[in-house]
Amino acid sequence: MGAAHHSVSEPQAAPAIWPKNAWYVACTPDEIDGKPLGRMICGERIAFFRNQDGEASAVEDFCPHRGAPLSLGFVRDGNLVCGYHGLAMGCKGQAVDMPGQRVKGFPPIRHFAVIERYGFIWIWPGRADEADPAKLHHLHWAEDAGWAYGGGMFHIQCDYRLMIDNLMDLTHETYVHSSSIGQKEIDEAPVKTRVEGNEVHTSRTMEGIKAPPFWQMALRGAGLPGDADVDRWQICRFSLPSHVMIEVGVALAGTGGYDAEIANKASSIVVDFITPETETSHWYFWGMARQFAIDDARLTDTVREGQNTIFSEDLEMLERQQQNLSLYPDRRLLKLNIDAGGVRSRMMIDHAIAQESSDHLSCEEA
Amino acid sequence: MGAAHHSVSEPQAAPAIWPKNAWYVACTPDEIDGKPLGRMICGERIAFFRNQDGEASAVEDFCPHRGAPLSLGFVRDGNLVCGYHGLAMGCKGQAVDMPGQRVKGFPPIRHFAVIERYGFIWIWPGRADEADPAKLHHLHWAEDAGWAYGGGMFHIQCDYRLMIDNLMDLTHETYVHSSSIGQKEIDEAPVKTRVEGNEVHTSRTMEGIKAPPFWQMALRGAGLPGDADVDRWQICRFSLPSHVMIEVGVALAGTGGYDAEIANKASSIVVDFITPETETSHWYFWGMARQFAIDDARLTDTVREGQNTIFSEDLEMLERQQQNLSLYPDRRLLKLNIDAGGVRSRMMIDHAIAQESSDHLSCEEA
Amino acid sequence: MGAAHHSVSEPQAAPAIWPKNAWYVACTPDEIDGKPLGRMICGERIAFFRNQDGEASAVEDFCPHRGAPLSLGFVRDGNLVCGYHGLAMGCKGQAVDMPGQRVKGFPPIRHFAVIERYGFIWIWPGRADEADPAKLHHLHWAEDAGWAYGGGMFHIQCDYRLMIDNLMDLTHETYVHSSSIGQKEIDEAPVKTRVEGNEVHTSRTMEGIKAPPFWQMALRGAGLPGDADVDRWQICRFSLPSHVMIEVGVALAGTGGYDAEIANKASSIVVDFITPETETSHWYFWGMARQFAIDDARLTDTVREGQNTIFSEDLEMLERQQQNLSLYPDRRLLKLNIDAGGVRSRMMIDHAIAQESSDHLSCEEA
Repeated sequence: MGAAHHSVSEPQAAPAIWPKNAWYVACTPDEIDGKPLGRMICGERIAFFRNQDGEASAVEDFCPHRGAPLSLGFVRDGNLVCGYHGLAMGCKGQAVDMPGQRVKGFPPIRHFAVIERYGFIWIWPGRADEADPAKLHHLHWAEDAGWAYGGGMFHIQCDYRLMIDNLMDLTHETYVHSSSIGQKEIDEAPVKTRVEGNEVHTSRTMEGIKAPPFWQMALRGAGLPGDADVDRWQICRFSLPSHVMIEVGVALAGTGGYDAEIANKASSIVVDFITPETETSHWYFWGMARQFAIDDARLTDTVREGQNTIFSEDLEMLERQQQNLSLYPDRRLLKLNIDAGGVRSRMMIDHAIAQESSDHLSCEEA
Repeated sequence: MGAAHHSVSEPQAAPAIWPKNAWYVACTPDEIDGKPLGRMICGERIAFFRNQDGEASAVEDFCPHRGAPLSLGFVRDGNLVCGYHGLAMGCKGQAVDMPGQRVKGFPPIRHFAVIERYGFIWIWPGRADEADPAKLHHLHWAEDAGWAYGGGMFHIQCDYRLMIDNLMDLTHETYVHSSSIGQKEIDEAPVKTRVEGNEVHTSRTMEGIKAPPFWQMALRGAGLPGDADVDRWQICRFSLPSHVMIEVGVALAGTGGYDAEIANKASSIVVDFITPETETSHWYFWGMARQFAIDDARLTDTVREGQNTIFSEDLEMLERQQQNLSLYPDRRLLKLNIDAGGVRSRMMIDHAIAQESSDHLSCEEA
Repeated sequence: MGAAHHSVSEPQAAPAIWPKNAWYVACTPDEIDGKPLGRMICGERIAFFRNQDGEASAVEDFCPHRGAPLSLGFVRDGNLVCGYHGLAMGCKGQAVDMPGQRVKGFPPIRHFAVIERYGFIWIWPGRADEADPAKLHHLHWAEDAGWAYGGGMFHIQCDYRLMIDNLMDLTHETYVHSSSIGQKEIDEAPVKTRVEGNEVHTSRTMEGIKAPPFWQMALRGAGLPGDADVDRWQICRFSLPSHVMIEVGVALAGTGGYDAEIANKASSIVVDFITPETETSHWYFWGMARQFAIDDARLTDTVREGQNTIFSEDLEMLERQQQNLSLYPDRRLLKLNIDAGGVRSRMMIDHAIAQESSDHLSCEEA
């Protein structure tokens, strides 16, 4: 009995609720240190590992021999060795060797384009040969010594787009995060929504207010008085496929707000990478990049703990919202002015999906 | 972007295994003290809360803004405020206010007719404008100072009608509750079943027997000797939609049984309100109303603990019975004389459902 | 209301992935000591108990009265009494008695042919009247005072045929069991596969090697030096419906290997009975029969613990393999030379299923 010859499986006919020709955060580098990682992304079970050159790599998490998850195996000489019968697969999905077997005729499995940059491993769930590194989101703060970063990851049981809605409309802070970053001034301040190039922006400013607890902590971390009157800003920026960068901060009142000198403010970027797992679940990579007290590792931990608490509050609301929407799938929701950021972001997503679909058709016709 | 205009959603096309134009126990008053309660009843997710007048109220547990469960929010000035973005909904399902929004055009959500009486919150899952307070079950003992009451609630994973079957045929006590209220004389005594007006009755009497442990405890609680010979009775009364009141008691042998003077007996009413949640789950409100030692709060606790233990024994049997029936849905069951109470009760339920359906048709034709 | 008359239910139209006219291990005798046991086998919920003569018996786990699981009840005078209302069912599925009822007209439930032998209770999931005791697998070691046996049972969430594949190709030991019985020489040694009568054999021998940890322990248990050079053998024998007996052992190098005198070797039979529960789960009865140190009960325990650890390693791999196969049901797998044992075994199973189906057709035509 020889190898059954069959071609590399095509990407599954995924439900068209996410673009697949785009870069998503798959994991952090520590998750593939010396061992493979299995994670479902955009409906595909994928095994991540480092190849012989130490490069992050990704293949289907499915051994072509008997279907065992390759991520249960181990990495040897930069190949991913199945933990069941020892078939070693290379980073391009090719069978490399197997004890007592000639693997030349073995069918390859899919591999995925992967980039390691900015402290993350990024994956392109579409065809590897169409992956375009130029499309990777640029994170200026991640390459700038003037910034510090800390973050974490949640596995959340809801459509990733509900998280985008959440982040593009921060009025929820008043209610969901009333004890940390919420304050009544947020939903009293009008929100501005606009599309700028490939981004959707929503923004809000509040002047001459008291900082809420999280920002009092940040002010003190930045060497400023926590109880001072401040000007506060929130600028949410959505970009494809599902990134939301939120510039947030407080400056001593009257010193220029967003444009204040660095000594007069505590400002940072709330970083949100939202990676679909299934139609009703996603991986949420959150963090904060900041320009103040960047050498204070304890502050990094304190901020991370604060964000962890805050985003856990969102988690319950979002999962319960998903349950409600799943139970009543035909109900229409309201689209208010505060929802415009989410609505515009979803339009951008839908457009990207439609574009992929039409590209695919042209390709088939050609 | 303004509010999407759409009409109040109609009640879901619920599986016709329960009448919806009837009063069910939804919860106890303490469950909505100062906070909303989310509970699915007859297939509908419902949020309960107290309005400005302190009246128990119920609306769909679905914020018309983004679908979040309203029961995750809070009550302010008698309105139910969504915990996600602050939309306040009134007790009639109307949008009341929301920061920065004009809510006039917001679509209402369903509200439900609710009555608070006898120590329970009752709900009419059908159309609120058809709710008929006169149809509320009358509980004489709940308004009579000569009675004491204690009880509890279980969430049970079985069709609510299996619980009705269970309660209308107490021969199971011999087997399921052999250490508390069961005794061999029960299934030796013939059961009488009859329909009286809107009630189904099943009854049994046993004369000159020893009381089982639970009733020995009750006798002693009533100041009578626990080891005396007694006459025992059980009279189960089913009424729509799903209430089973069971008159139970023991009297010193020869003193008149059910009709004995109060000094010679320990008698009480086992109270069972059975509220459907889904086709295969229900909320079971159980308790005991008694006429003896009514000022003895410790006895109330002892009785509650005893009932809690007894009904927990039913719970496992009923859930496993449901699993069997779900696995073999087409198997026919026996209908013996002892099952006549359950059979007659289900006929009454089916008749009520058919009546609702025919009323609905007439209404549409009109 | 009398008994609803209906005939004994036919066996469910089970998915044709297992033969039903064959003997499977259902449980061990201790599991039905003094109490019934409920277990699903080949898609049927079955209640096991001992009848009046102490004989292992099996009936549907479904009381014909109200559908309660009979296994929740108890055994009285060799009948299985339903724990709900006391209907007693006999070992042939007949209603025996019930308080206050004439049970003559009650419909019977299915009963199953059962044999107790070799320390196991065996069941024939097909029609009881077609059960053929001559088809019971013969276990010579179980009746031979020169052998000792110990074993255990796992409930595993995968198609039982994945376990057969696993056991008929021991190259996985190198990877899955690297710390106990695995060694690189296994997948370097060529495997021989052949069909002999009603059995599929796969075999491997390794000469002049070091014993891996489990076998060092066994050598010492047998009074031989654990660090000696040895010849090792593995002979896997599949037989219908799903038994895999594996002769394994090590002999001091050059003393004859498999044929060495008993004083020079530690040899045993790995015993595997694999009983389907559903299409994606099974009961795995594993153990070891050995010819060395047979009076050493502590060694029996040590071996059992060792096997328990080893088979637990398989369990995770197999369940994850099943998840992958369920997610990608249309993917074809490779069939290598090392897989020939599993492939041949599945062919034998498929042939038996086809034969049953054709027998059934002939029977219907007649």
